[in-house]
Amino acid sequence: MSQRVRLAVIRGDGIGPEVVAEGLKALEAATAGSDLVFERTEFSLGAERYLATGDTLTDADLDAIKGHDAILLGAVGGVPNDPRLTGANIERGLLLKLRFELDHYVNLRPTTLFPGVTSPLAEPGEVDFVVVREGTEGPYVGNGGAIRVGTSAEVATETSLNTAYGVERVVRYAFETAERRPRKRLTLVHKTNVLTFAGSLWKRTVDRVAAEHPNVAVDYLHIDAVTIFFVTDPARFDVIVTDNLFGDIITDLAGAISGGIGLAASGNINPDGRFPSMFEPVHGSAPDIAGKGIADPTAAILSTALLLDHLGRREEADRVRTAVTADLAERIGGAARSTSEIGDAIAARLAG
Amino acid sequence: MSQRVRLAVIRGDGIGPEVVAEGLKALEAATAGSDLVFERTEFSLGAERYLATGDTLTDADLDAIKGHDAILLGAVGGVPNDPRLTGANIERGLLLKLRFELDHYVNLRPTTLFPGVTSPLAEPGEVDFVVVREGTEGPYVGNGGAIRVGTSAEVATETSLNTAYGVERVVRYAFETAERRPRKRLTLVHKTNVLTFAGSLWKRTVDRVAAEHPNVAVDYLHIDAVTIFFVTDPARFDVIVTDNLFGDIITDLAGAISGGIGLAASGNINPDGRFPSMFEPVHGSAPDIAGKGIADPTAAILSTALLLDHLGRREEADRVRTAVTADLAERIGGAARSTSEIGDAIAARLAG
Ligand SMILES: CC(C)[C@H](C(=O)O)[C@@H](O)C(=O)O
Ligand SMILES: CC(C)[C@H](C(=O)O)[C@@H](O)C(=O)O
Repeated sequence: MSQRVRLAVIRGDGIGPEVVAEGLKALEAATAGSDLVFERTEFSLGAERYLATGDTLTDADLDAIKGHDAILLGAVGGVPNDPRLTGANIERGLLLKLRFELDHYVNLRPTTLFPGVTSPLAEPGEVDFVVVREGTEGPYVGNGGAIRVGTSAEVATETSLNTAYGVERVVRYAFETAERRPRKRLTLVHKTNVLTFAGSLWKRTVDRVAAEHPNVAVDYLHIDAVTIFFVTDPARFDVIVTDNLFGDIITDLAGAISGGIGLAASGNINPDGRFPSMFEPVHGSAPDIAGKGIADPTAAILSTALLLDHLGRREEADRVRTAVTADLAERIGGAARSTSEIGDAIAARLAG
Repeated sequence: MSQRVRLAVIRGDGIGPEVVAEGLKALEAATAGSDLVFERTEFSLGAERYLATGDTLTDADLDAIKGHDAILLGAVGGVPNDPRLTGANIERGLLLKLRFELDHYVNLRPTTLFPGVTSPLAEPGEVDFVVVREGTEGPYVGNGGAIRVGTSAEVATETSLNTAYGVERVVRYAFETAERRPRKRLTLVHKTNVLTFAGSLWKRTVDRVAAEHPNVAVDYLHIDAVTIFFVTDPARFDVIVTDNLFGDIITDLAGAISGGIGLAASGNINPDGRFPSMFEPVHGSAPDIAGKGIADPTAAILSTALLLDHLGRREEADRVRTAVTADLAERIGGAARSTSEIGDAIAARLAG
């Protein structure tokens, strides 16, 4: 019996197609000869599609994507300040729309400082934590507005929406993640002293769910303080749970201290399985280096490991991580390699 | 003729009184023999006052403070999780209330990596930038609410308020600050691709004011990206202008990369001069180390330099900074000194 996985592939813009190609190589190599069979559908989405057709994400696109088991996404977004993209907002209209419509309430972002990888920190210590970022609420809901735009009396608002329903489910996921990890620590990050209503909901929810997880050691840090510890003592973190915006901010910083955003993988997960989960590197489309074959495909490849985790294929996922770990260790002092050379090297390890 | 300065002193809680004592020593030493005369009024405010009287900041306190030319504040806030402080929120009721009532629309936070000070970054380069954080709007306005609190149907909101009036005045201040600095660079930090209404107001305002400052080189970074550059290339920054919450987050990170929050000074400034400006170390009351004489008073002392700047006393302010710079350079490899030993050493340099 084979496990058939309908995989929606969104290569996107800039370096997206380049890194997705290598991610797919790794995925194939890691599962070759196994009972896992990927059936791919390509979706042309992103700035290029928008420029060609005026569409960002149509209902038909969305419906078609919903018919899949998982999504692999490269990166979307055009050249900054391209006048033809003024008013397009590919981020909100495509990337965030997918996360919201597909109820990706867990945005999972592991951070590991792999052996041999250089951190900008002088003494990073052992960095191995995972940020469980809420993906469907908070300041990302697009609940804002403006009046008298362009006048000296303009007022613009942005409202963060937080629900017991939305907070509890992601907090539960974070506790379950902590239970499965050796250190079993969970840190809530928020700004409870200023954002008192949302903060109180998050804090009370964590306290309540914590009572069901006596093995998990829980603490709390304000968003400002957590940035300090990320650079002075990142080794203290195990699982971090936080809202959509705080999670956005700290995962870029997490990527930076662990060798760069070129290594940072992520999963936009719908744990209920009602909708396909989506796996993507944290980095963007980087139009400035697109087409040169110099983008690092590692984050995309590590994202396929998260995809395999999600499919219940822990063994194959670990093989991808092991191959990446070995490849990274060998990069030290080595010559620069192209995107496809890195992908080929990792695929070769997986095949061997 | 002497310049009489009515100085409100809020020593506060925890290490607040210890560091303020040293700040005042430096201020006296830097201005001794000059025409500057400080008339101090002490205000007992903070968790201790709250516990003793139930008051956080009364109208009478506020009125009395308004009768001053400037404020020096140590730190406020009690022991975390002190059950007697449940529901008190000294931060909102006192610190933020002062910033809002006194229209401190510029929260000025310079970041310098002083010679000899160790950064957690392996290669920090020359770090010398200033964050101009908006202080009276954004997600800090306290415009939130909640319904069905404590039930599974709870909804909690937080609204960020942004006005053309409020954004323009702080942006203008930031451009004027950039004009006075040799590198004349200004970076706007926001999250325009997600917080589109507020982000658009900020972006358009910066673009418009930029046209009046052709000498200033302007760029824009998303809040997530700026955290990356803070650890990979902090030397690229000169003046950063940003909203209240983003400013809170990045200034803690800025403190961390430049030798710790124990060195980070700040000014809550009302540039109009309608209300007294307030100078305070960025650090908190640190109840865990209070009363031991081990707190670093440097941030409080550097805050008095910002106070002197604000009084138009650039020369005296620079003398304080020079004395601190010399003291910091001598700390390398030296024995640990107490709070008052550091304050005495800096005051002695200023007197000498
Ligand atoms: C592109 C942008 C909308 C997105 C976000 O803010 O979530 C990105 O920064 C990320 O972290 O995936
Ligand atoms: C104590 C808190 C309310 C305050 C803030 O968030 O502004 C502090 O973190 C700061 O940066 O001065």
